[in-house]
Amino acid sequence: MTEKIRAGILGATGAVGQRFVQALADHPWFELTSLAASERSAGKTYSQASNWKLDVPLPENVADIEVVPVDPAKVDADIVFSALPSDHAKTVEPVFAKNGFAVASNASAYRMGEDVPLVIPEVNEDHLEMIEIQQDNRGWDGYIITNPNCSTIVMTVTLKPLMKFGLSSVNVATMQAISGAGYNGVPSMAILDNIIPYIGSEEDKMETEPCKLLGEFNGSEIDFADISLSASCHRVPVMDGHTEAIWATMDENPAPEDVKRAFFDFDPKIDDLPSKPDKSIVVREEPDRPQPRLDRNMGNGMSVSVGRIREGIRYIAMGHNTIRGAAGASVLNAELLCKKGKI
Amino acid sequence: MTEKIRAGILGATGAVGQRFVQALADHPWFELTSLAASERSAGKTYSQASNWKLDVPLPENVADIEVVPVDPAKVDADIVFSALPSDHAKTVEPVFAKNGFAVASNASAYRMGEDVPLVIPEVNEDHLEMIEIQQDNRGWDGYIITNPNCSTIVMTVTLKPLMKFGLSSVNVATMQAISGAGYNGVPSMAILDNIIPYIGSEEDKMETEPCKLLGEFNGSEIDFADISLSASCHRVPVMDGHTEAIWATMDENPAPEDVKRAFFDFDPKIDDLPSKPDKSIVVREEPDRPQPRLDRNMGNGMSVSVGRIREGIRYIAMGHNTIRGAAGASVLNAELLCKKGKI
Amino acid sequence: MTEKIRAGILGATGAVGQRFVQALADHPWFELTSLAASERSAGKTYSQASNWKLDVPLPENVADIEVVPVDPAKVDADIVFSALPSDHAKTVEPVFAKNGFAVASNASAYRMGEDVPLVIPEVNEDHLEMIEIQQDNRGWDGYIITNPNCSTIVMTVTLKPLMKFGLSSVNVATMQAISGAGYNGVPSMAILDNIIPYIGSEEDKMETEPCKLLGEFNGSEIDFADISLSASCHRVPVMDGHTEAIWATMDENPAPEDVKRAFFDFDPKIDDLPSKPDKSIVVREEPDRPQPRLDRNMGNGMSVSVGRIREGIRYIAMGHNTIRGAAGASVLNAELLCKKGKI
Amino acid sequence: MTEKIRAGILGATGAVGQRFVQALADHPWFELTSLAASERSAGKTYSQASNWKLDVPLPENVADIEVVPVDPAKVDADIVFSALPSDHAKTVEPVFAKNGFAVASNASAYRMGEDVPLVIPEVNEDHLEMIEIQQDNRGWDGYIITNPNCSTIVMTVTLKPLMKFGLSSVNVATMQAISGAGYNGVPSMAILDNIIPYIGSEEDKMETEPCKLLGEFNGSEIDFADISLSASCHRVPVMDGHTEAIWATMDENPAPEDVKRAFFDFDPKIDDLPSKPDKSIVVREEPDRPQPRLDRNMGNGMSVSVGRIREGIRYIAMGHNTIRGAAGASVLNAELLCKKGKI
Repeated sequence: MTEKIRAGILGATGAVGQRFVQALADHPWFELTSLAASERSAGKTYSQASNWKLDVPLPENVADIEVVPVDPAKVDADIVFSALPSDHAKTVEPVFAKNGFAVASNASAYRMGEDVPLVIPEVNEDHLEMIEIQQDNRGWDGYIITNPNCSTIVMTVTLKPLMKFGLSSVNVATMQAISGAGYNGVPSMAILDNIIPYIGSEEDKMETEPCKLLGEFNGSEIDFADISLSASCHRVPVMDGHTEAIWATMDENPAPEDVKRAFFDFDPKIDDLPSKPDKSIVVREEPDRPQPRLDRNMGNGMSVSVGRIREGIRYIAMGHNTIRGAAGASVLNAELLCKKGKI
Repeated sequence: MTEKIRAGILGATGAVGQRFVQALADHPWFELTSLAASERSAGKTYSQASNWKLDVPLPENVADIEVVPVDPAKVDADIVFSALPSDHAKTVEPVFAKNGFAVASNASAYRMGEDVPLVIPEVNEDHLEMIEIQQDNRGWDGYIITNPNCSTIVMTVTLKPLMKFGLSSVNVATMQAISGAGYNGVPSMAILDNIIPYIGSEEDKMETEPCKLLGEFNGSEIDFADISLSASCHRVPVMDGHTEAIWATMDENPAPEDVKRAFFDFDPKIDDLPSKPDKSIVVREEPDRPQPRLDRNMGNGMSVSVGRIREGIRYIAMGHNTIRGAAGASVLNAELLCKKGKI
Repeated sequence: MTEKIRAGILGATGAVGQRFVQALADHPWFELTSLAASERSAGKTYSQASNWKLDVPLPENVADIEVVPVDPAKVDADIVFSALPSDHAKTVEPVFAKNGFAVASNASAYRMGEDVPLVIPEVNEDHLEMIEIQQDNRGWDGYIITNPNCSTIVMTVTLKPLMKFGLSSVNVATMQAISGAGYNGVPSMAILDNIIPYIGSEEDKMETEPCKLLGEFNGSEIDFADISLSASCHRVPVMDGHTEAIWATMDENPAPEDVKRAFFDFDPKIDDLPSKPDKSIVVREEPDRPQPRLDRNMGNGMSVSVGRIREGIRYIAMGHNTIRGAAGASVLNAELLCKKGKI
Repeated sequence: MTEKIRAGILGATGAVGQRFVQALADHPWFELTSLAASERSAGKTYSQASNWKLDVPLPENVADIEVVPVDPAKVDADIVFSALPSDHAKTVEPVFAKNGFAVASNASAYRMGEDVPLVIPEVNEDHLEMIEIQQDNRGWDGYIITNPNCSTIVMTVTLKPLMKFGLSSVNVATMQAISGAGYNGVPSMAILDNIIPYIGSEEDKMETEPCKLLGEFNGSEIDFADISLSASCHRVPVMDGHTEAIWATMDENPAPEDVKRAFFDFDPKIDDLPSKPDKSIVVREEPDRPQPRLDRNMGNGMSVSVGRIREGIRYIAMGHNTIRGAAGASVLNAELLCKKGKI
């Protein structure tokens, strides 16, 4: 790759937007050319507008970039990464796609769209083939691809290697980090010394998105996987890292050792992507792992850690929600687009 | 009741021991006559020995009681409440029972003993009939009764009203408070900004104790309930209150409204016990309840709160682990003993 | 007192408003007759409007009261307690006073007003004599009295007994609870695993209000106390209870034992007020007290606890910020008004 | 430097020991050759013995090193870094020094020893000249140098540039992270939703060590600086990073802008040391900084961040307690030893 691809971020100042900046500030394939945010932020430097809240310093080469409005005429890029709220994404992303941008979106607005790829590279990279269908359908020069909800990603990466055992149903109880709700999403008085056993529309996403992700692209559309999912989602006082207790019922009724071996051997053949971790699934042998504080940064935040694989089959999965589950997921999708020559 | 029953506490200085003191310091039926603890504490006043750690003040009438050793010859009481660690309970509780004490134990040592009642008054008060069998078997003047593990109690109170629907299997994911591990049980570096997806032997207790509790006493022994339980237990940064996400499969496949009605109508007919809350199960209608910080003190900490009853059947249960799930459970059992004339 | 005084709350649904409800729902002298809040809440029942967030249950006799607008024509009461934000209080409180209401305000808008009593009953109850001057000045039938800022109250209760030693200067570093900022005031991402070394205008309040409180009413105005105060205010991840590290320089240079004795002997002669705790200052002897979680509920949340009195003089003070430092402070002031026949 | 210096760690498995491993695993001047710990750990691999608890992965080249006992005969190194508890350090460190090792100690045992350098490279690098005196006095081939207590370091780095204004007295209130007490040091029940206003012997260290650090080496001994210090130390629920509210009284009474300039211009001329951050003092202009979660990793954890410089002079200082305040401090001292040719 002789020249870097020009990349913009839509919604660059929020919690996920900042993770996009972190991922792209020094990326080997992409060059950060545009940071777009609300009218309130436009015209300010990124350091003024973002109120940077990560525990790694704001990259110096980004601090002085002037924030532009979320407008295709103002954004200079080949691909835009969208960290917009879903309702805003719904109106804005098609405009960018129509104007020839590749849109890699973390928003939920178009995930379940019939001609929109919902992709985790380790799970269903061939679904990107739908891009042409989408462009034909809609008459767009650009296109929209999406990554799933954060809690869906952490779970589905671990469900993929279980498909060969005839996965039929899943119960999952999540313990989700506060960063998933955005910087102002959870008041401290709501969560200190507390659990909130509810996250709006999260359970619905966890119960539908995996069937698309684990489905088969038949050349014209996705045949959804026939898996029955039941989720119970809870907010916990953890900064980053979603922990999930999963029960998976499989026709072949594998032993825990078989499941562990399937996790261990999982090798999705996308190793030449820069954001791909050495191990997409890290198997922990200790009785009390994975834990969000200790394991969320494995693989630069891109590995999903699993452990406590027991009869049932029951196990624990944990991944970084704003990296593996959001910004990193979109960037990995974009790297896959590059590799496939779609940007 | 003209005269109060003399009550002692074994293991009076620990986290559960302090909850026993709170429950008994001003009890209408019991008079706190002996506080027993380790040799290290014996001889000190309770205020010196206990390092009182509750957010309610140490009762004044207890502060100056001299702590005695855990020895039947030194304990002056009709009934002793045991907050001993399980290994210590195993050797000590039979000695007290042999010496004529009624022992109401929160320890796990004898819960699954064939002739030992494991009782939640709202669930299986008739199991106390096993006391005579125990005394015959062992030649004891006294006896041991037990209450279940804290996470078992919170769940099983809510399973009881589901039995009529043909309860066959349960998956449960717990989010358990740090007080369940005792004052020094969980280092702050282990749990701040973290989840620990493991609690030693907790899952085993949750998978076996309910079958005894929900079983039938046939006059000589317990016929265990035929329910398949699968638990995943997690420690969270919450001071008090265990939250549990429960999936319950029932032969009759009731609708969520039927289950809610069963919870709402649950009326275990033990209302004349002083520690019995108005509602043993409090049904919450809000989408985001129950929550430990807001609901753990309902019914003076003795109510189990439920909510989010959804298709599945899935729901959330939450109760105070060191009151409803420990000290309060033992005291409620002892009140039942009084009412039945067994002390 | 044959008949209770009718009491209303302005701003009844917020964090401090809920503490007012808790304090007044079962008060011996006051009867809660009106709950006023924003237009958005008006017309709803209090249980609908308040989203009750305390860990004690919402009083049953209050749940169904209909919330009214913050309008003297809609509020039926002899006295109103104001938990309004300062800017709103600035316009609304004079309207109530003009319409004949006694206004006991927790807001900062009028605290430093020349003819407005700023009162802590244990510190300067005689400042209430300014009420007549205020009514003359302004031609009001009613009047406004105020209590200080939460962190000021905790500190100033402990400075009062030091005045006799010739208190000349104070340095104070606070560690303040999140409830002081209101329910939505501090995002969890801002404070989990963190300290925020800044609270807007808090230091200014702590450096000015004590000089008025500790000043002398000369019959027409307050001669401010000549004390130099320097504050550094910090937000910490604690739910309730402000902890303050105080250095007090006194002309007489008393020994720590003298200061401890002064705290211990502090007896402000207002014992017949229902909200007055047995000890306004609780002196702790342990090396590691007071602590907010363990001591904030002392005296039903109305005691200030002190400890670690060392050469310097240095010591720690701690009190419940939304009870002693807000709602309870206003109620105690109102009780003093009753006793003095001013309502 | 053609060959790396062989380095060992004494007390390698604890919280500070793990930070030493992190600092030395890939160091340009040192090669980690020996990891020494208690008899219980000796013989195990480091990954087995350490129960690694940092949120960065255990370095792979260290995981399989066999832990040796804390015994000069078993430790293969030119320099040893000591993370031993103080009482253990007291007996062990002289044995290593006598056996020819350079000992760079984080323990408090010898800090105030008359012939023991207590050094922060940015503050008093010339105090290392005392090494020869120490060796003469004691007849040792090796020697002991020490770094100060964590909270002392954070403060003293910021006091150094104030010396030119005639620093005479300091009040400091600390808000210290739980990692400062070691992994098992603070139970979660002690600190969740709480502040502990006491840390054993911490205030004494903060009041004595700076006078030695800021003193002058007169060729034979240290003339202590004549500064009066008064500290109040508090534990807060923060994982890493000590925050300190400092009042500094100076003869020249500089304006806040002068102090800010002094911090900004501080340039201790030790830039060729690998662990030296670009800026030893980072000056923050925002009204609410520094904050531990956001700023503790500045300069790879080696910068002290300051902010809120106000009349008084008052300001906030914050630094990473187990890096800048412990392991990183010892390593920086050792780098200075190398540069000066003393190893």
